[in-house]
Amino acid sequence: MGKIRIINLQRSVFEDNDLDADRLRDSLKKRKVFYVNVMSSPGAGKTTTLIALINRLKQDFSVGVMEADIDSDVDAVKVAEFTGCKSVQLHTGGMCHIDAEMSRQGLKEMGDLDIVFLENVGNLVCPAEFDAGAAMNVVISSVPEGDDKPLKYPLIFEKSELVILNKIDAMPYFDFDRNEFEKGVRERNKTSTIIEISAKTGENIDKLTKYFKDKIIEWRGYYA
Amino acid sequence: MGKIRIINLQRSVFEDNDLDADRLRDSLKKRKVFYVNVMSSPGAGKTTTLIALINRLKQDFSVGVMEADIDSDVDAVKVAEFTGCKSVQLHTGGMCHIDAEMSRQGLKEMGDLDIVFLENVGNLVCPAEFDAGAAMNVVISSVPEGDDKPLKYPLIFEKSELVILNKIDAMPYFDFDRNEFEKGVRERNKTSTIIEISAKTGENIDKLTKYFKDKIIEWRGYYA
Repeated sequence: MGKIRIINLQRSVFEDNDLDADRLRDSLKKRKVFYVNVMSSPGAGKTTTLIALINRLKQDFSVGVMEADIDSDVDAVKVAEFTGCKSVQLHTGGMCHIDAEMSRQGLKEMGDLDIVFLENVGNLVCPAEFDAGAAMNVVISSVPEGDDKPLKYPLIFEKSELVILNKIDAMPYFDFDRNEFEKGVRERNKTSTIIEISAKTGENIDKLTKYFKDKIIEWRGYYA
Repeated sequence: MGKIRIINLQRSVFEDNDLDADRLRDSLKKRKVFYVNVMSSPGAGKTTTLIALINRLKQDFSVGVMEADIDSDVDAVKVAEFTGCKSVQLHTGGMCHIDAEMSRQGLKEMGDLDIVFLENVGNLVCPAEFDAGAAMNVVISSVPEGDDKPLKYPLIFEKSELVILNKIDAMPYFDFDRNEFEKGVRERNKTSTIIEISAKTGENIDKLTKYFKDKIIEWRGYYA
């Protein structure tokens, strides 16, 4: 395993992030880089999920990961170690989210891969407010957090077309009502897909992989 | 159970939050209101912990709770229902934290109680950056989140004199290394207290209650 590159992000100077995000999205489309923004609470299992998913996807695609964190490089090291894929650490210097210009600073290091995952800062509030320029927004919720998260953090569920419910192996030990959770998700987004997984046991990782493969093929088709 | 009062917070206009927070702290000292800022990730168990704690503390003190949330009033309703104590819901209108002026807007509704708890927005990043004017900062971490949280969210552990580790009843089902967690906490704060609890089973809630009682008596002593 090589050394992990750490990028200290600069605060964005661009005034209109939405416009900048659209511009980044267009440029990535032209380069056929499928950029995925993965958001969640701290400890919902972003890194473990990405490792499990990438180890399947890398058989068909070139994949890279950008790990955003306030501090530390443990996630980037872990991803590189367990997937062998290109992984960089983005240090936000205290900032609670990643926007389009910060994405660009990281993507410059990645080159033209088929898929680049952004593991956003663990936070259900701020990342939802800033369009990172991704082709797809994903939120990971986990069973121990409880079924009321869509109720309390509406925007992130509104913005995410894929909701991954992780740690379903822990379902017997927590009071988690699947119907309540789904009802909450539906209130925020009528069309998003919910996939239940356990990144730890590997349950439904095949299903998740298939979802991503189909998505990428569909996305490429539009711009072929 | 009466109706829950919802306060839609106004964005603060005061420029220097640190100065404003000191001012609020002084005024609360004079009024002998012990104001406690409780922070954590979404779903770490702030509400359940507060309910268990308040049901003990209310035997000796008058207690109130301010529940900060982007949306919904489920927590304030729950606290009122299960403790009978005064509870208000603070709606942040998308804001990711509570600062001193926002605290003041809520505290106005509470009157002069012995203890007022603020359940801050579920977020390990932003709330740590804004001094809420509290006499005491508390962070709740939970076993399912993993033992690396102090490593990844340094500021909140630096600012908190009490670290509550919740959901220890789930310890057998997760890879959580107590030594790693404590090492991480110590790197951020050499003097903070760590108390392990299960708000669900009630384990160590007596210990936590004693900690708070001692703290309040000590704090009152200083300004008696």
